Amino acid sequence: MDPSRLVALIMAGGGGTRFWPRSRRARPKQFLRFSGEDSLLRATIRRLEGLVPPERTLLITGADQVSLAREHSGLPASSIIGEPEKRDTAACIGLGALLAAKIRPDAVLVVLASDHLIDPAEGFRASITRAAELAVEHGAIVTLGLRPDRPATGFGYIEFGKRLDETKPAGFQVAAFHEKPDAETAGIFLRAGTFLWNSGIFVFTVPVILDAIKTHMPELHAGLMSIRDPRNPEDVRRVYPGLVKKSIDYGILEHAKNQIVVEAAFQWDDVGTFEALGRYLKPDKNGNLARGGAIALDARNNLVDNDAKGTVVLSGVSDLLVVRTDDVVLVVPRKHAEKIKDIVDQLHREGRADVL
Amino acid sequence: MDPSRLVALIMAGGGGTRFWPRSRRARPKQFLRFSGEDSLLRATIRRLEGLVPPERTLLITGADQVSLAREHSGLPASSIIGEPEKRDTAACIGLGALLAAKIRPDAVLVVLASDHLIDPAEGFRASITRAAELAVEHGAIVTLGLRPDRPATGFGYIEFGKRLDETKPAGFQVAAFHEKPDAETAGIFLRAGTFLWNSGIFVFTVPVILDAIKTHMPELHAGLMSIRDPRNPEDVRRVYPGLVKKSIDYGILEHAKNQIVVEAAFQWDDVGTFEALGRYLKPDKNGNLARGGAIALDARNNLVDNDAKGTVVLSGVSDLLVVRTDDVVLVVPRKHAEKIKDIVDQLHREGRADVL
Repeated sequence: MDPSRLVALIMAGGGGTRFWPRSRRARPKQFLRFSGEDSLLRATIRRLEGLVPPERTLLITGADQVSLAREHSGLPASSIIGEPEKRDTAACIGLGALLAAKIRPDAVLVVLASDHLIDPAEGFRASITRAAELAVEHGAIVTLGLRPDRPATGFGYIEFGKRLDETKPAGFQVAAFHEKPDAETAGIFLRAGTFLWNSGIFVFTVPVILDAIKTHMPELHAGLMSIRDPRNPEDVRRVYPGLVKKSIDYGILEHAKNQIVVEAAFQWDDVGTFEALGRYLKPDKNGNLARGGAIALDARNNLVDNDAKGTVVLSGVSDLLVVRTDDVVLVVPRKHAEKIKDIVDQLHREGRADVL
Repeated sequence: MDPSRLVALIMAGGGGTRFWPRSRRARPKQFLRFSGEDSLLRATIRRLEGLVPPERTLLITGADQVSLAREHSGLPASSIIGEPEKRDTAACIGLGALLAAKIRPDAVLVVLASDHLIDPAEGFRASITRAAELAVEHGAIVTLGLRPDRPATGFGYIEFGKRLDETKPAGFQVAAFHEKPDAETAGIFLRAGTFLWNSGIFVFTVPVILDAIKTHMPELHAGLMSIRDPRNPEDVRRVYPGLVKKSIDYGILEHAKNQIVVEAAFQWDDVGTFEALGRYLKPDKNGNLARGGAIALDARNNLVDNDAKGTVVLSGVSDLLVVRTDDVVLVVPRKHAEKIKDIVDQLHREGRADVL
């Protein structure tokens, strides 16, 4: 496969509620740094170096974040597209397919999230290359899957069937997509050895994804076809808000035939919560995890994310999550770390948009 | 009594450990604002207006805080004395008596702390005037006492005897000084109705206090007498570090005869802890107390002291003390609020002087 057919589509539309107060309406997660030097978004772009150049990289983000994304990503202005409103991933990928076809009619679309931790980058590029070859060779929708190392309940799973050949990274036929399981089911998936985590990274040609949309989401397909020029923001703005709001997982992947999963040759996390961040931190002797300045005295199993100058001092407390930014300190039981969105919703209801 | 005999001695040597991280080594409690517009120190000076002018006001503070105190207090440079090292209140008051005698040989010394909340100021001035009259008339050590409204264990108590006369504020003979009691004893004191809190505000003439020191702390007296000129920092520095380190309460008041207590005509608190600060805050419907920006969601009985810009958000936690300054956030169970000094000591031992 000619590598110059690759067009990257980075979806960066996250609202940033799960990482509040680190992430804010005006500064969602993808613009933040986690473990590395780069923000998640910049790391995503950098990871493509040598595989997909900036002029074949598309970044779709919220219309109100376009200028931030331009400044932050270093991508050419023409690469950054503002979604008039959020219509979930199926519509976003549909629009991306139309845009990719304008770059190259024979484009192979590489759909990426902007907020994943991935390492090493060479493994990522090798996996994408392999997925693109299979996508073209089989006319398939190809998803990257990760070998699970724990019964995670925060990810979807892909049950795989027959291995396609002996080439590495390994490609398998997809047997079924499974939504985020409960803990018991996750344990079954893990022990079975025939399930991979759904990374949310997809590779397919433009005709393959548009055909799949036409078959499984005909309304969305009709809407997309009514966009005269996807590069014209006016045209997009006229159609986009009326498109069906559904994820590609529910709308397409759970139904489509001819799907392949490539077992990714890299470590991956989607850093969806502060707890996920905690997995990248080394505990002290009392199980406290901290990013940034923190001192724990007679304190156990706390998680601190200190993004400001200075120090968080914990004494005599346990199992707390403390997040500090320049202007907000959040203190919650660590078991609520998965429900930060509820706190954000509550602050919204109480008219405290000033802190969101 | 001639009011121009009054010389105020403000003791401002606090190390600021009980209010860490609000108070710091370089910025002890007396330089902080609590409920009012002024810092505690400035409020102390302002409260003397019309009673004792700046040129008869002495401020004794740590040698390393002299320049801060000069800038902050607005007192003349000659009024501010740096203690070469801390030798507790008996030595400090002895030095103050020597200095007061240089201002006026017949000085009546008014010993004040720099970190008390007192209201109203008129009641304070009336109480001091009354105490000074009794101090001169009876040649007595006079302490201001507060009628207790709760069985506080954080203050010393003064058991009083016979009322001297019908003049108000009332003056009583002192029957005995009692150290900080346990809770049961504090309850007995409260119910007896013959006990007042020891405010730490004392009034006496120079000869009376120097005589009492000579009788009960002869070593300290000898040391003080060896200071050739108390206004000469070199002379003080030579003698002061060798002085006996003892509080005036233990060294003098618990032993001296001829003591009087005046029932103060003001509300008083020594704001010794964050819990004491909490008494000046109004709880929300879930019992949360907050100074500065704070939001409590499904949170109960927390105490927040937020001295920085921005907001502390608590969700799902209870009975915590959260203190936020520009550079430190402290999170501890509220029941530890009385033991902040232990945390400071521990930080010191762990080599974290950077946050102290």
